[in-house]
Amino acid sequence: MPGFTQQYKDLSPSRRLLLGPGPSLVHPRVLRAMSTPLIGHLDPEFLVIMDEIQELLRWLFQTDNSFTIAVSGTGSAAMETAIVNLIEPGDRVIVGMNGIFGARIAQMVTRCGGTVVEIQADWGTPIPLDQIAHQLQAAGPIKAVAIVHAETSTGVWQPLDNLGALCHGHEALLIVDTVTSLGGLPVKVDEWDIDACYSATQKCLSCPPGLAPLTLSDRALHVIQNRNTPCQSWYLDCTLVADYWTKGKRTYHHTAPISMAYALREALRLIHEEGLDARFARHQRNSQALRAGLEALGFTLVPAPGHSLLTLTCVALPEWLDDKTIRSRLLHEFHIEVGGGLGPLAGKVWRIGLMGESSTFDSVVTLLAALEHLSSQANPSVQPGKAVSAALQKYNTWPR
Amino acid sequence: MPGFTQQYKDLSPSRRLLLGPGPSLVHPRVLRAMSTPLIGHLDPEFLVIMDEIQELLRWLFQTDNSFTIAVSGTGSAAMETAIVNLIEPGDRVIVGMNGIFGARIAQMVTRCGGTVVEIQADWGTPIPLDQIAHQLQAAGPIKAVAIVHAETSTGVWQPLDNLGALCHGHEALLIVDTVTSLGGLPVKVDEWDIDACYSATQKCLSCPPGLAPLTLSDRALHVIQNRNTPCQSWYLDCTLVADYWTKGKRTYHHTAPISMAYALREALRLIHEEGLDARFARHQRNSQALRAGLEALGFTLVPAPGHSLLTLTCVALPEWLDDKTIRSRLLHEFHIEVGGGLGPLAGKVWRIGLMGESSTFDSVVTLLAALEHLSSQANPSVQPGKAVSAALQKYNTWPR
Repeated sequence: MPGFTQQYKDLSPSRRLLLGPGPSLVHPRVLRAMSTPLIGHLDPEFLVIMDEIQELLRWLFQTDNSFTIAVSGTGSAAMETAIVNLIEPGDRVIVGMNGIFGARIAQMVTRCGGTVVEIQADWGTPIPLDQIAHQLQAAGPIKAVAIVHAETSTGVWQPLDNLGALCHGHEALLIVDTVTSLGGLPVKVDEWDIDACYSATQKCLSCPPGLAPLTLSDRALHVIQNRNTPCQSWYLDCTLVADYWTKGKRTYHHTAPISMAYALREALRLIHEEGLDARFARHQRNSQALRAGLEALGFTLVPAPGHSLLTLTCVALPEWLDDKTIRSRLLHEFHIEVGGGLGPLAGKVWRIGLMGESSTFDSVVTLLAALEHLSSQANPSVQPGKAVSAALQKYNTWPR
Repeated sequence: MPGFTQQYKDLSPSRRLLLGPGPSLVHPRVLRAMSTPLIGHLDPEFLVIMDEIQELLRWLFQTDNSFTIAVSGTGSAAMETAIVNLIEPGDRVIVGMNGIFGARIAQMVTRCGGTVVEIQADWGTPIPLDQIAHQLQAAGPIKAVAIVHAETSTGVWQPLDNLGALCHGHEALLIVDTVTSLGGLPVKVDEWDIDACYSATQKCLSCPPGLAPLTLSDRALHVIQNRNTPCQSWYLDCTLVADYWTKGKRTYHHTAPISMAYALREALRLIHEEGLDARFARHQRNSQALRAGLEALGFTLVPAPGHSLLTLTCVALPEWLDDKTIRSRLLHEFHIEVGGGLGPLAGKVWRIGLMGESSTFDSVVTLLAALEHLSSQANPSVQPGKAVSAALQKYNTWPR
């Protein structure tokens, strides 16, 4: 037995303004919901909570899909759920690869024995839909097309126009990653004809990480029910999971994360109270104010024009700004978290999230004021006040 | 978009005395920890919390294993993590099957392409270790032996004497499921030579479900590092997960369930304050008091003599007691949850958990008093007071 002398102190993390790629700030009502004493995961009252979560998730995903649940894991668990249930050995899958998360999907497809047909695009640019169309024609039978709606590693907002119809015209399923869009940008599962759509709780839903929304179309369910091989995961097997989530069945599969379900229900209830249109408008307005301020400081948007996410702003750093030093000072002196770059963008960009509860004008002004202060020390030509003024002007002139 | 008219009310679940197979009651300090505002999953302060969780889990598992973490999912996710990382297609695995959870392990082995060598035992009896020894000799090269220490479906406490040495003498790994024992019964990973040992948070740790402790020996890690095929799961791949949990690396893999980590740290801190010996003694004493009371009412222990768990008591119902009616009345009239039987035991047994915070004399007396009341209505020969008295006597004469 290892000896240890350390005493474990009261939990007392520092205050943080969470403006990274997730987690975002969590509303006090959601925090309070988690402190509710537990009931059993098969308690009739818990089953009602699950029904409500399903109903609210359908509203949020804008779908009638009966299979609409929260996977018992974080966003990557929902990604893996979609892939391991839909893909079998030998299946060919077109994957849009222009960032970390497309690459992650491709890895999962490979680990299922599937073959990845890559559609590459530069980091910062969207996947050209015409190349998907071309590969659907050229690459032989395709089981599915998988694409990231909001690429968390680059801040790219991927257009999905008519992609569902295009896929279905070739008997392919459409899988869409909405981890950084659901709850902050419109995600219209039925209108866009998406077959598998997943997200995470700790981004635009402003709920702590630990659950991951997933919805599957009836077409996707039909594919799952007619697999030739069993799903390689027992934990994520949708046929088993469905038996627990389906009204009237409620067969024990695994123990649901009860406190997280409390939190998700409350987070969804808050979104429902705000309304989707008001919520999307809020994300847009604060995002535009932030951009104006960042551009005034010399930051430049990484995504191609017209493709910047409104939930997560990915900006290239001015030459005079040292990534690690300034991010560390933001964290330690101002209690502000922003995200650094991943992969080839490490050290070169920041990823600034204004998601859910973090999407407020307070967040924008606080971050810009802190940045102005630190920037003017690093570069005397930075005029204090300029960035905040630019943001303020954009915010105040925003059409109501 | 589906229409819905229902209004979503404040979260207000009924009070519950949780005496089922999990979740168990959660200490107010753990509930409060979850309501702590979030910090980022790569925040330097969060990495310290992870270090502390690892240190406390090593203490609890009684191991020096460097790989000792909490999997981002519930107990079955940790089971799947152990299996998918250690087992490759073609591997032969001896699985002890005397309940639901042994059968679950076998399913996971099969889904990895492994071959299961079943050691069957009747539900309620432990796996005969001599049959494992025989199969290790007879069944050709065996990659691993997997066995359940505390079978949640039958209440059987499995002896593990010398099993580690036996396995290693045949170059086999030992995988042990301690979902319903860790924190309530001794689990000595190093002394018992276990290579992969996993648990869940919502049983004897009295932490909400959502994380699952897992420890791997260096021998297990060596096997993982020398696999011929990639791990079929990306989300549960221990080589990737280790890079996030290892001091000095801390490479992003997936977003950790931050609030659950807060809860687990606090639950482990409470266990540390109580001390393992005191905690095990408490579980033993309350369990013996419960048994005395149940036997006075005509319940009989399901497990073979000497093999009843002290954390979860599985009892056959007296003939005159109707499972569903009385369980429902316990829940709705007395706010008490006990577990029903699974599989072939459905309708015939109850599974009564006295785990973690639920293991108190209050729990025992409250349950027995309610049961006496309901039983005397169903069967006039039941003498009210007898069960509580029997429990009280056992409790008070228990050696300190």
